[in-house]
Amino acid sequence: MAMLEGMKLYDGGRAPNPRRVQIFMAEKGIDIERVQVDIARLEHKSPEFTKINPMQRLPVLVLDDGTVIAETVAICRYLEAIQPEPPLMGADAKDSAIVEMWQRRVEFGFLMPVAFAFRHQHPGAAALEEQQIPEWAEANRPRAREFMEFLDRELATRRFIAGERFTIADITTYVAYRFLKPGRIPPPEDLANLQRWYGETAARPSTQETVSV
Amino acid sequence: MAMLEGMKLYDGGRAPNPRRVQIFMAEKGIDIERVQVDIARLEHKSPEFTKINPMQRLPVLVLDDGTVIAETVAICRYLEAIQPEPPLMGADAKDSAIVEMWQRRVEFGFLMPVAFAFRHQHPGAAALEEQQIPEWAEANRPRAREFMEFLDRELATRRFIAGERFTIADITTYVAYRFLKPGRIPPPEDLANLQRWYGETAARPSTQETVSV
Repeated sequence: MAMLEGMKLYDGGRAPNPRRVQIFMAEKGIDIERVQVDIARLEHKSPEFTKINPMQRLPVLVLDDGTVIAETVAICRYLEAIQPEPPLMGADAKDSAIVEMWQRRVEFGFLMPVAFAFRHQHPGAAALEEQQIPEWAEANRPRAREFMEFLDRELATRRFIAGERFTIADITTYVAYRFLKPGRIPPPEDLANLQRWYGETAARPSTQETVSV
Repeated sequence: MAMLEGMKLYDGGRAPNPRRVQIFMAEKGIDIERVQVDIARLEHKSPEFTKINPMQRLPVLVLDDGTVIAETVAICRYLEAIQPEPPLMGADAKDSAIVEMWQRRVEFGFLMPVAFAFRHQHPGAAALEEQQIPEWAEANRPRAREFMEFLDRELATRRFIAGERFTIADITTYVAYRFLKPGRIPPPEDLANLQRWYGETAARPSTQETVSV
């Protein structure tokens, strides 16, 4: 594990977006000094953190010149540029476009519905939303299920979400899958290809829960 | 305007995502053979189009080897790789990360709330959603407004959304802004910096409504 000096990662524990960057770094074999921001205690809404990221979202990467890079996928893009191996966002123009297509499909089609199901109905998420709309949570559960059925058909033809190589699209899918339970969406035990993929992904060293620096 | 041969763009007229790719191509000075898919007539939900993109979303780029690239930003990423000038997605690692951060902030913080406000309340959008949830539309309007106020403060310090150069983040912001009216969100006439930015962007040749090929 190579420590990248001069940067700071404002982390957010086990929430989906912080987890995406943690897994991305583990796949790259890199780590970064971390500052823990406790989402459960709403530290990401504090005046201090709001100065760093007005969107009040985690994680955030701060470079040695003070540049703030927020947004999970933007952080991953920067890490991919400075540590290209192994490629997690595509190996050439066409491959990069395919990986980005799948990353986005999974983000909009799976992670977001699962997150809406959680944030708009779970009592533990009440402080995260100005107003919970349970009807919106309920409308998202069948969408997440439908998307999993689509993924299951796709995974009959290849090993990973975006092809034969593990990519950022697998990371997004994995954190969404792990978030099904807080979203009160039944695990897709009947979808054999998705189960096969999940079993393989959950067994990777990068997805093990790790103690942060 | 250079015609890129061997590719086909499944277009979608004036809807926000098709417009994003149209403006991106115009900024690059390139065009691609287009197949019009009529969203108003729900042609994107037809069995024929669903075979091309199971997500039933537009636009879609099909390469000469049959590779399907869906998702607006993935299509832009591919076009950026084959036609790098002028750079619309960043000029180096840090710049690319900053552009991606802003592209995503605008997409999640502005385009999505505006789209939800439209899709969950406008009678003309009833066929696009399985179930319209007006409460969800209403919850998104103050978010869009709040984001515009944030953008206005940011645009006091620089010319464009992600810095001193026009990028994909400006394109996303522009289509979201143009979608305020269908989303029944008042135009931000009191936000002078945002108005200045909008005026400049709306005057660019790339944003003029064009007749497609």
